[in-house]
Amino acid sequence: MKEKLYIIKIGGNIIDDEEKLHSFIESFAALKEKKILIHGGGKLATSLAKDLNIPQQQVDGRRITDEATLKLVTMVYAGLINKKIVAHLQSLQCNALGLSGADGNTLLAHKRPLTSSGIDYGWVGDVDAVSADAIKNLLTSFDTLVFAPITHDGKGQLLNTNADTVAKEIAIGMSFFYDTTLIYCFEKNGVLMEKDDDDSVIPVLDSALYQELLRSKNKKGEPVIAEGMLPKLSNAFATIEAGVGAVVIGHADQLEKMVEGGAGTFIKKR
Amino acid sequence: MKEKLYIIKIGGNIIDDEEKLHSFIESFAALKEKKILIHGGGKLATSLAKDLNIPQQQVDGRRITDEATLKLVTMVYAGLINKKIVAHLQSLQCNALGLSGADGNTLLAHKRPLTSSGIDYGWVGDVDAVSADAIKNLLTSFDTLVFAPITHDGKGQLLNTNADTVAKEIAIGMSFFYDTTLIYCFEKNGVLMEKDDDDSVIPVLDSALYQELLRSKNKKGEPVIAEGMLPKLSNAFATIEAGVGAVVIGHADQLEKMVEGGAGTFIKKR
Repeated sequence: MKEKLYIIKIGGNIIDDEEKLHSFIESFAALKEKKILIHGGGKLATSLAKDLNIPQQQVDGRRITDEATLKLVTMVYAGLINKKIVAHLQSLQCNALGLSGADGNTLLAHKRPLTSSGIDYGWVGDVDAVSADAIKNLLTSFDTLVFAPITHDGKGQLLNTNADTVAKEIAIGMSFFYDTTLIYCFEKNGVLMEKDDDDSVIPVLDSALYQELLRSKNKKGEPVIAEGMLPKLSNAFATIEAGVGAVVIGHADQLEKMVEGGAGTFIKKR
Repeated sequence: MKEKLYIIKIGGNIIDDEEKLHSFIESFAALKEKKILIHGGGKLATSLAKDLNIPQQQVDGRRITDEATLKLVTMVYAGLINKKIVAHLQSLQCNALGLSGADGNTLLAHKRPLTSSGIDYGWVGDVDAVSADAIKNLLTSFDTLVFAPITHDGKGQLLNTNADTVAKEIAIGMSFFYDTTLIYCFEKNGVLMEKDDDDSVIPVLDSALYQELLRSKNKKGEPVIAEGMLPKLSNAFATIEAGVGAVVIGHADQLEKMVEGGAGTFIKKR
């Protein structure tokens, strides 16, 4: 039987709130199994960009990463946030190691080409390869790894990569060696039947139910699967198709319960 | 026989000069043996502090690390500089892993107390322990490690630590497992007999000769060992006394020759 490995992604809303982050880190540190945390960046990069007069441009909610912004996110994600989280974990006797995808050649990516509609995302990287061997070697010495969503192209260029994607790619890469569960922590309790009712969590979602829900409306006559959830869910099903045991989506406050299967939406193949 | 390990420290003057840094990284990557690079920060942190209106205070040439400055150096040293160096090494097929002292609990430090003269250095750390086991574990998977001079206190606090000291402490810590050579790269060809004559390098310096030179004057009637070299040399002899095989001080341009013993000042016990 394969050893258990949790891949856990936290977003900016937790990073930005010191109290939430501390309590999340405590429950994360308490997990006994091997685990990898992937963190996003939060508002810190945006506010620092403002202080440094680096104009921030977004297309469809995605940051355009120009040269100055790449430096900024490398500093903030791989430097400040990553090392603060690692130091905090160390204080909880959780011997963590912080990384970017350049370290140990763990995440190789290529610069995203111009989109068909002519959008240049700048120094944004799409992942080509996860060095599962390197990550496995690190996990034999350290139970806990912390990844900043910065990758590299193998030619010396750092790249800014979406943290959800990094989490997914690492989970898929590691599922060959480990019984892997990918947990997306966000600000809702899971996939909701009624988007404003946090108690309407769908506990288990397989692809048959998902297809059904995609065609369903909730009590208010709105699509059950809100538009904002579509990329997350299509990502989740793709992850499962690629061999990852389970994907759980839920609230960062409920990590322990999610691990036990008592909270969040548990996404499975069938 | 113990395996060979090089601990190599580069200072800000190399970091600040893109061309020098590139050529240094190339000769560093070409070293076949296991190796650890420790880098300082250079002027980038200072110029960013200016852009962000963070006043920088120095006492005896040492930066006072207030809260804002600690964030800044964590971003610049452990984020931008560390990851740029690692990505560059990867492009040269040198599979490096970048670290701070919080990662893997590799460098444990304590906040420097008020000095006897009442100076508060702020969030500056003096190293208490090097986890040689953790570093050795990493060196079994990766031949090359790159350390930023950021440490932690085990209670969740990051600390800013002098890079020369980090290099020395790692060299001492690793000398139990490896045949360790510590190389300090700086902007001179070595310890000079005549401080303005870069050809007057003292090739070998043992403690007997050092004691003699401390009492000697050069052709101009000045002390041979310039005041600025005293901390570096007393550090070097302390390192050797603590069990490190050799310390070499020389020019960053001459790394390959230094490794072969053909450049720099080779410092040995006797």
